[in-house]
Amino acid sequence: MLRKLFDELEEIYPELVDIRRDLHMYPELSHQEVNTPRKIAEYLEKLGLEVRTEVGGRGVVGTLKGGKPGKTVALRADFDALPIQEETDVEYKSRVPGVMHACGHDLHTATLLGVAKVLSGVRDEIPGTIKFIHQFAEEATPGGAKAMVADGCLDGVDMIYGAHVMSTEEFGTVSVKEGYASSAQDDFNIVIHGRGGHGSQPHLSVDPLVTGSQLVVNLQQIVSRRVDPLQAAAVTVGSFVSGEVNNVIPDSAVIKGTVRTFDEEARTIIAEALENVTNATCTANGATVDFEYIKDCPSIYNDPQETKRVEEMATLLVGKENLITGVPMMGSEDFAFYQKEVPGVYFLVGGRNEEIGAVFPHHHPKFTIDERAILHIGNMFISLVLNFLSDGKIKPESK
Amino acid sequence: MLRKLFDELEEIYPELVDIRRDLHMYPELSHQEVNTPRKIAEYLEKLGLEVRTEVGGRGVVGTLKGGKPGKTVALRADFDALPIQEETDVEYKSRVPGVMHACGHDLHTATLLGVAKVLSGVRDEIPGTIKFIHQFAEEATPGGAKAMVADGCLDGVDMIYGAHVMSTEEFGTVSVKEGYASSAQDDFNIVIHGRGGHGSQPHLSVDPLVTGSQLVVNLQQIVSRRVDPLQAAAVTVGSFVSGEVNNVIPDSAVIKGTVRTFDEEARTIIAEALENVTNATCTANGATVDFEYIKDCPSIYNDPQETKRVEEMATLLVGKENLITGVPMMGSEDFAFYQKEVPGVYFLVGGRNEEIGAVFPHHHPKFTIDERAILHIGNMFISLVLNFLSDGKIKPESK
Amino acid sequence: MLRKLFDELEEIYPELVDIRRDLHMYPELSHQEVNTPRKIAEYLEKLGLEVRTEVGGRGVVGTLKGGKPGKTVALRADFDALPIQEETDVEYKSRVPGVMHACGHDLHTATLLGVAKVLSGVRDEIPGTIKFIHQFAEEATPGGAKAMVADGCLDGVDMIYGAHVMSTEEFGTVSVKEGYASSAQDDFNIVIHGRGGHGSQPHLSVDPLVTGSQLVVNLQQIVSRRVDPLQAAAVTVGSFVSGEVNNVIPDSAVIKGTVRTFDEEARTIIAEALENVTNATCTANGATVDFEYIKDCPSIYNDPQETKRVEEMATLLVGKENLITGVPMMGSEDFAFYQKEVPGVYFLVGGRNEEIGAVFPHHHPKFTIDERAILHIGNMFISLVLNFLSDGKIKPESK
Amino acid sequence: MLRKLFDELEEIYPELVDIRRDLHMYPELSHQEVNTPRKIAEYLEKLGLEVRTEVGGRGVVGTLKGGKPGKTVALRADFDALPIQEETDVEYKSRVPGVMHACGHDLHTATLLGVAKVLSGVRDEIPGTIKFIHQFAEEATPGGAKAMVADGCLDGVDMIYGAHVMSTEEFGTVSVKEGYASSAQDDFNIVIHGRGGHGSQPHLSVDPLVTGSQLVVNLQQIVSRRVDPLQAAAVTVGSFVSGEVNNVIPDSAVIKGTVRTFDEEARTIIAEALENVTNATCTANGATVDFEYIKDCPSIYNDPQETKRVEEMATLLVGKENLITGVPMMGSEDFAFYQKEVPGVYFLVGGRNEEIGAVFPHHHPKFTIDERAILHIGNMFISLVLNFLSDGKIKPESK
Repeated sequence: MLRKLFDELEEIYPELVDIRRDLHMYPELSHQEVNTPRKIAEYLEKLGLEVRTEVGGRGVVGTLKGGKPGKTVALRADFDALPIQEETDVEYKSRVPGVMHACGHDLHTATLLGVAKVLSGVRDEIPGTIKFIHQFAEEATPGGAKAMVADGCLDGVDMIYGAHVMSTEEFGTVSVKEGYASSAQDDFNIVIHGRGGHGSQPHLSVDPLVTGSQLVVNLQQIVSRRVDPLQAAAVTVGSFVSGEVNNVIPDSAVIKGTVRTFDEEARTIIAEALENVTNATCTANGATVDFEYIKDCPSIYNDPQETKRVEEMATLLVGKENLITGVPMMGSEDFAFYQKEVPGVYFLVGGRNEEIGAVFPHHHPKFTIDERAILHIGNMFISLVLNFLSDGKIKPESK
Repeated sequence: MLRKLFDELEEIYPELVDIRRDLHMYPELSHQEVNTPRKIAEYLEKLGLEVRTEVGGRGVVGTLKGGKPGKTVALRADFDALPIQEETDVEYKSRVPGVMHACGHDLHTATLLGVAKVLSGVRDEIPGTIKFIHQFAEEATPGGAKAMVADGCLDGVDMIYGAHVMSTEEFGTVSVKEGYASSAQDDFNIVIHGRGGHGSQPHLSVDPLVTGSQLVVNLQQIVSRRVDPLQAAAVTVGSFVSGEVNNVIPDSAVIKGTVRTFDEEARTIIAEALENVTNATCTANGATVDFEYIKDCPSIYNDPQETKRVEEMATLLVGKENLITGVPMMGSEDFAFYQKEVPGVYFLVGGRNEEIGAVFPHHHPKFTIDERAILHIGNMFISLVLNFLSDGKIKPESK
Repeated sequence: MLRKLFDELEEIYPELVDIRRDLHMYPELSHQEVNTPRKIAEYLEKLGLEVRTEVGGRGVVGTLKGGKPGKTVALRADFDALPIQEETDVEYKSRVPGVMHACGHDLHTATLLGVAKVLSGVRDEIPGTIKFIHQFAEEATPGGAKAMVADGCLDGVDMIYGAHVMSTEEFGTVSVKEGYASSAQDDFNIVIHGRGGHGSQPHLSVDPLVTGSQLVVNLQQIVSRRVDPLQAAAVTVGSFVSGEVNNVIPDSAVIKGTVRTFDEEARTIIAEALENVTNATCTANGATVDFEYIKDCPSIYNDPQETKRVEEMATLLVGKENLITGVPMMGSEDFAFYQKEVPGVYFLVGGRNEEIGAVFPHHHPKFTIDERAILHIGNMFISLVLNFLSDGKIKPESK
Repeated sequence: MLRKLFDELEEIYPELVDIRRDLHMYPELSHQEVNTPRKIAEYLEKLGLEVRTEVGGRGVVGTLKGGKPGKTVALRADFDALPIQEETDVEYKSRVPGVMHACGHDLHTATLLGVAKVLSGVRDEIPGTIKFIHQFAEEATPGGAKAMVADGCLDGVDMIYGAHVMSTEEFGTVSVKEGYASSAQDDFNIVIHGRGGHGSQPHLSVDPLVTGSQLVVNLQQIVSRRVDPLQAAAVTVGSFVSGEVNNVIPDSAVIKGTVRTFDEEARTIIAEALENVTNATCTANGATVDFEYIKDCPSIYNDPQETKRVEEMATLLVGKENLITGVPMMGSEDFAFYQKEVPGVYFLVGGRNEEIGAVFPHHHPKFTIDERAILHIGNMFISLVLNFLSDGKIKPESK
């Protein structure tokens, strides 16, 4: 049965590439997705699935009820894009200035639609129910997962799988880590209030731009000095905006950043140090400050037993030599919110390919990916849901 | 004759306040002035002056030919506004979001129009010609003065006077300094090119935002360590823009700033140090950089002999105790470009008044001014041009 | 047999405490040890061991030939102190100003002497040879291990064990990690050459003190931005010395520091970044620099099979609940040099005890330790050598 | 009379050079002068002057009572050296390691002794009294002037003159500025208390060295941002000492520095900002701090009328073209303490000579000076005291 489904997926691969490229050309920012969920819903409806839109806001959930009774399993793909100006040379380059699918969510979406199509074809043979969760706003804080869960997208679900294509892992590989696998993500927003004035008279102003620069420099010490070197942590300032013209000292500076940690103690240390360093740096410069720290996304927690299933499927599909285990990832994922409700596994599929220039990190203006990862994610998804629903009976032939 | 003119100016003072407030409500940014020069030209035309518009771009020059032969003297006022969001509570607050007359150019313009009106009334008695130079884009680099000079606004002019109302000097005072009186202004523009990426993986990126912050901090040492403490100098970064969202390391950072000096050696030291520190800081962080240093406006040079005339007029008009001499100002002024062509004097007129809250520095969102400075500047202008054209014969009575 | 030896060790415990406290009162700095090795040699000689002194410089090696043929096993303890002014209140506080046993090497030495005494008593029953390696200069770079190995201290040795008492681990615990277990240690030495001068005329000098300060700040970014957050790394500046008096800008600044890493790629990235940042920071300030990077001590590598033996002994002696496994340590240890020659295991023994105030980190002026760790290390050593020499036959009863 | 005295000074010039070089070879630090005051006292005693030693501590005052009644005038020279390792190649290089006459006080002393000798020869003709004040510890805070004044060295004095040879002014010049002429000097001492520990575990320590480095960097903003650019100011950290070895995070950091200002408002702003920035930077890093700010030496105030006398003498002696007026100096001088008691003038005499390599700034290890400045200072002193005592009658012939 799986062999046939894999073949069918390969058959519709050109269609899925078209879908992916169409999404790529017309990316939509988190919480601003309009056409993307519409396209998804239309596709799923054509397949005859029961489709719910505006789930938790802009999410789409398709439900495929199998012909036989059984458990319910969910697959999830995200569909939002990033505020990045694309700098690639691909013909399907973003047509939307300043917005880009630089993280592969377009590919995730196309893959999940393909999996839905293929599985729809064998609906009668499926012992249970499959939910296709198309999530909006994965890149944002707060993201779409929390809202979709709150809106019932996991009702009745027993197990959930998610996957991410990776430009940093070789094409052909699958990577999964049991237990805590991704970093928690917190965000911080800082507004420094100085006192503007003329650039030639700094002594009459309180310079928020210099204060902010000093703050960004000082923040580097949190990771270098405050956190146990054995604990992975990142404190990144992603945005610094202050002033407009050369000769006016601005009134304020706006600084936004993110914190990634695995360890809860490190998370607490960083949150406290961030606030202390921010306050003290502003005090030193006579500025005042609004400081906001948002505890957002927890760590991915991959159910240990289910992780074994993912490892087994991957071994059969891509070979033991292409299975990577035990490597945590620094990125955070709001897939973690689904795992707070039901057991689940999140795994990574390689999409790096030096020959085609798919070597840039995620969120890079030149990010590209080996699109054939569609097949790898698709086959993994198909295998996992059927293996799960059949209690391990259905499994791929060994590669 | 002067007494009568002063009285007439006082009579039309309400009208001038109206003009000033109208300009204040509808400020226009440097090089984007459309309605302001139109209003000026219309006013001057109504007075029967010969009016030239679009001088050097957006400048307006009105010429009043006196009834008797004589020399030609010019008066100059600037009329552009700043990209600042006004935060005052005045009823004539800016109606244009993010744009504000925060330096008093609205008042300069209204004053010069009033002076033109009053002097038009005694045209027949004037022994010579008076040019009213309404300049655009004083705040910008390059500013309007250079362009207006190139476009002939000083043709035939023997002497030029300019004035600035000051919220940092008490209302009632006049301040003038012989010789070099304001700082030279240079600008610099820096674009740091890093390599963007995901905020959780700093090691895969080259972080231009941290590099830029470090640079701003490092630049502080130029004034504190490189420049002779006895030489006045300011290096101000007015704008730092990098990144948009919390969790994406941006590709670049854009930094803009200004340099003020009196001494040519200090100017050279700073220009070199700026470039060296910028290059080295970027090298240290693995970033590349575009560095641009624009030598812009020279120092104001007040003709020593003519400065005596300004001091004499001020003594007669506001009293010896309200005349401030010998104090240089850190601000730069493209009035200096007129003085490179013809002798001239630039003086300051107090507009600070604690009672009405006119205490904020120029370029501050809460900047306001004692509008009665219109009368002080106006009377000074009227006295100066007539004293100059009459070879010292016409002068105000002692106060 | 082991039970009897453990009892004997406990009997001589007061003597060992005396030895430890004597060493504590008269600490000697790395490479300056004179009395410490003399005392050790005298003690071992009294036990009738074959003693070699000045091994590799200042090391002492005692050899206990057992009555039966067999393999050769080595035990190692270090004996140097640190340039720290002790700030504890213990009666056996250091009598040497500015020098302190703040890392527990005094306890290691006393323990190893006790183990030698106890084992000497059963010499005839021992199937093989035991070498007691008392090492000098563990804290220094280069340390004593390399020199002692070069001077033959491991000749004929089949296996080596070492241990460290830890004020950061609870008393009663044993901790060991298979494979790479400690960080590699590199050192760097930086001399910044500026140009001295009078403090009131910074522009005539090149200020090496400000340059050095900026460098220390800039170095924080190496760990925070350049190294993969998933890789443990520390870059610490341990010494900054520049200038003597308030009002003279010094000619130079001397900066010394250390780098700790597990991963070879991170090590390379840091070494390169250190040099680049140092050079660029000095260039930015017009200073020149001497930069030296010394690749010193590699990572501890605990033989996987032998680690199992350590785990087994620890389980029997302190109980499974007190055995900590899998935790790497950031500190580096030149024990790694022995392991480059012969297999070996290095383990940690808890000495933290809040009740007696033994809570300060190593190298802290208030560092103290629960001395009863002497018994834990001693019993572990005794068990390990006899278990090893007896091919696993001799082992402690379960606790 | 003056011509003859000038000739005599020239005659004994070789002897004065010998004295100067002897002092140069055996420099003594501030407050540690033993042999220098002894040599001075012996010399003055041989001249038959009334000599008081240990004035205010280590000062020496010689009194020459003229044969005729009159006013009392004082001349002052300082005699302490600096903690600098001399790096010149002169044969009379300092024989004391780490101590150097790098500011010319040896020359001042030799000159004043020569002047005393020459004037002693015409004692009978002198209408009044001349006091030769040889001051200790000019470089220190607190310096010797305050103590010598308190100990009565100015009793009965009507006027005081002092001079400094300058390697930054061309040989042959004399420079004097009416009114406030030198900067006020304040000192600050900062001890940052962190928490020491092992270099590999920064998170267990509070790093005072990084905190101190950040502080030094932050302090640069005081001059660059807080002080009016039109006000001369310098904030210099002269000493930063923290830690000893590469791999131990130290417990504390000691930072010493100096502040120079002319303007009292700038002085207050800096003192407050220094304390605020220090406290806030330490707070940001979790460190505590001892902060000490010592208001030390005020500005030199040259009596306007007496300054005219100095200008007149200099014009006659070195020519109008070699007289520099109106230039303030950043250095501070505790000569200011004498001027708080009696009117006086402090002037500068050029000693820079590129041909002989006398080009390095004061306090530089390669500082040298054109020794012929002895004659210029000497002739100025001789002329000034006799002109003053004769009420302007005695004056040099025009050059």
